[in-house]
Amino acid sequence: MKFLLFSGSLRKDSLNRKLLAYVSRLLENNGEQHEVADLATLNFPVYSGDIEAIGIPESVKKFSAQITDHDALIVCSPEYNGSIASPLKNALDWVSRIKPVPWKGKPLLLMAASPGALGGTRALWHGRVPMEVLGIQVYADMFGLPKADQAFDDNGEFKDPKTKDRVIGLVKDYCDFARKVAGKS
Amino acid sequence: MKFLLFSGSLRKDSLNRKLLAYVSRLLENNGEQHEVADLATLNFPVYSGDIEAIGIPESVKKFSAQITDHDALIVCSPEYNGSIASPLKNALDWVSRIKPVPWKGKPLLLMAASPGALGGTRALWHGRVPMEVLGIQVYADMFGLPKADQAFDDNGEFKDPKTKDRVIGLVKDYCDFARKVAGKS
Amino acid sequence: MKFLLFSGSLRKDSLNRKLLAYVSRLLENNGEQHEVADLATLNFPVYSGDIEAIGIPESVKKFSAQITDHDALIVCSPEYNGSIASPLKNALDWVSRIKPVPWKGKPLLLMAASPGALGGTRALWHGRVPMEVLGIQVYADMFGLPKADQAFDDNGEFKDPKTKDRVIGLVKDYCDFARKVAGKS
Amino acid sequence: MKFLLFSGSLRKDSLNRKLLAYVSRLLENNGEQHEVADLATLNFPVYSGDIEAIGIPESVKKFSAQITDHDALIVCSPEYNGSIASPLKNALDWVSRIKPVPWKGKPLLLMAASPGALGGTRALWHGRVPMEVLGIQVYADMFGLPKADQAFDDNGEFKDPKTKDRVIGLVKDYCDFARKVAGKS
Repeated sequence: MKFLLFSGSLRKDSLNRKLLAYVSRLLENNGEQHEVADLATLNFPVYSGDIEAIGIPESVKKFSAQITDHDALIVCSPEYNGSIASPLKNALDWVSRIKPVPWKGKPLLLMAASPGALGGTRALWHGRVPMEVLGIQVYADMFGLPKADQAFDDNGEFKDPKTKDRVIGLVKDYCDFARKVAGKS
Repeated sequence: MKFLLFSGSLRKDSLNRKLLAYVSRLLENNGEQHEVADLATLNFPVYSGDIEAIGIPESVKKFSAQITDHDALIVCSPEYNGSIASPLKNALDWVSRIKPVPWKGKPLLLMAASPGALGGTRALWHGRVPMEVLGIQVYADMFGLPKADQAFDDNGEFKDPKTKDRVIGLVKDYCDFARKVAGKS
Repeated sequence: MKFLLFSGSLRKDSLNRKLLAYVSRLLENNGEQHEVADLATLNFPVYSGDIEAIGIPESVKKFSAQITDHDALIVCSPEYNGSIASPLKNALDWVSRIKPVPWKGKPLLLMAASPGALGGTRALWHGRVPMEVLGIQVYADMFGLPKADQAFDDNGEFKDPKTKDRVIGLVKDYCDFARKVAGKS
Repeated sequence: MKFLLFSGSLRKDSLNRKLLAYVSRLLENNGEQHEVADLATLNFPVYSGDIEAIGIPESVKKFSAQITDHDALIVCSPEYNGSIASPLKNALDWVSRIKPVPWKGKPLLLMAASPGALGGTRALWHGRVPMEVLGIQVYADMFGLPKADQAFDDNGEFKDPKTKDRVIGLVKDYCDFARKVAGKS
């Protein structure tokens, strides 16, 4: 059972990368095999049919192969204007051009971190739509971290024990679900 | 493994009841244990906190017990004004008042039949939102039947073999998924 | 220029009725002609095509006539399961059966009050969809009142001056917009 | 009264550019002042906070100035994976970084062309969300052109007279609405 993790934000110091790093350590502690992909390094162009006609970028092919090679996904993505972050939408769109679509049938846990009070809630609900269109089996439960700029201590641990328990429980439940869906339980 | 089926339309001659009857026969043929609930007979009032304060209606309790008693759900619902049908939303809301929430964690296949050209597509995408909020694990793939008033022959069979194959395949895939999620595969 | 106001909650002591009462006083102070409709008193059944076939209920006709008689709408509605409240959806659906559709072309301000931290945000975004499908010109700006159970003092005034300013400004801007759209500026 | 038009697709031979060209000729015939912007030529990078920290790209500033300089917008955009096209979301996100937000308060007509049977319906409903979050006053009525690859004759005219009448009527109604909202009626 292999999990692929990535952030929907390209920014190096993004709060969503912090949240992703936390989840990555959780999986490490739980002995779950996993890998982190980086959309900033992959550096996709904005999707264009004219670019695709010349050839799907190598970076898109590489990322697609990573998805295919993993059983399940975990995504932490910011909210841009009350909706899905453009780098995430762009990644979904590019990868959807590879056939068979690498996303199809994969379980996915969607999380969001935001400095605001709503915790990226609208990004979660707007963002899961294209994922579900692509046949991704998005986990029913999601998590938005409000005031994410104040949520972590210097060691990247959650200051609030309730938040910590919630994230640990969610990731555990999701891993169980993903294992079942992947037929590896 | 027990499946509970119901239609989001209260109308007796509803196209969604026809689609539901088709799915019910499919499950029968596949040897899947299942039951059909009827929101028209259950006859919930429009949700009101004042009614709830007096007491949750017996019909809501009865339907909730049915949901709890089944492992997975299949819903066929019409599109009202490009969005979720009010009888379905009302049923989701009433049942959500029973604790623990009977919907939580149940796999659900969402289908729609419509006389229009879009096949109730917008009802599917608008309708799955409250389901997912309630923790229902809505199957990623959904199905909207366009021009549903012309889709069935006198025996309730699909006239179009492609539609027939699509529905048979979808229901089979969903049953496999539901079995995995319920831990009964 | 006449504004029609109603709440999406049927409960007598609903927080949304409190918010609506506040807006009603604002309009009063601004000399805006307005009326408040009450979905609890109107007491619609859950929408059913079989009821409609017998005859659209008188209460639906009465409410529809009120809508037609007014230039613009203001709605305060709770969030039920992260989405549109069933009494509101039911009212939208019933009125949509009157032709020509009374909702069509009317400007509408959508507000929500919620005891939760998110202020009914998801209800606003999920709830505006059927309204826009019906041709209602929902005002781009919306307002969700979080922790609404603690928001008002004994006189029904906002405790927080920022919230007060926000609501006063929003209602004023909306009235200007509605007047323009109705061609009465 | 000045209208700014642009397509959400970067592809040169895009069906949405064809639809946009049709609308542009309509405005020409109606004596409406208008301009067409081109996201492909503007060539924004995928949004990144790290790029923004160095400086908002000149192309974003140029497009923002165009928006500010116009009273109203018309957008034709494809559907990518049942949702907003990534180039459009990216443009919305970049321009939202300019303060005051150039989008705010502008009326906008949203259209979609698609080779599929649904006419990009899901892109319209998914795409208007971030626009409305940004304070854009999206016109309630929208238009999706199904089977767009077969919709136009060699002169770029609609083959189907009903479609032609619908688009002519919609654009006229929208122009009236936009004029009212802009206070120029």
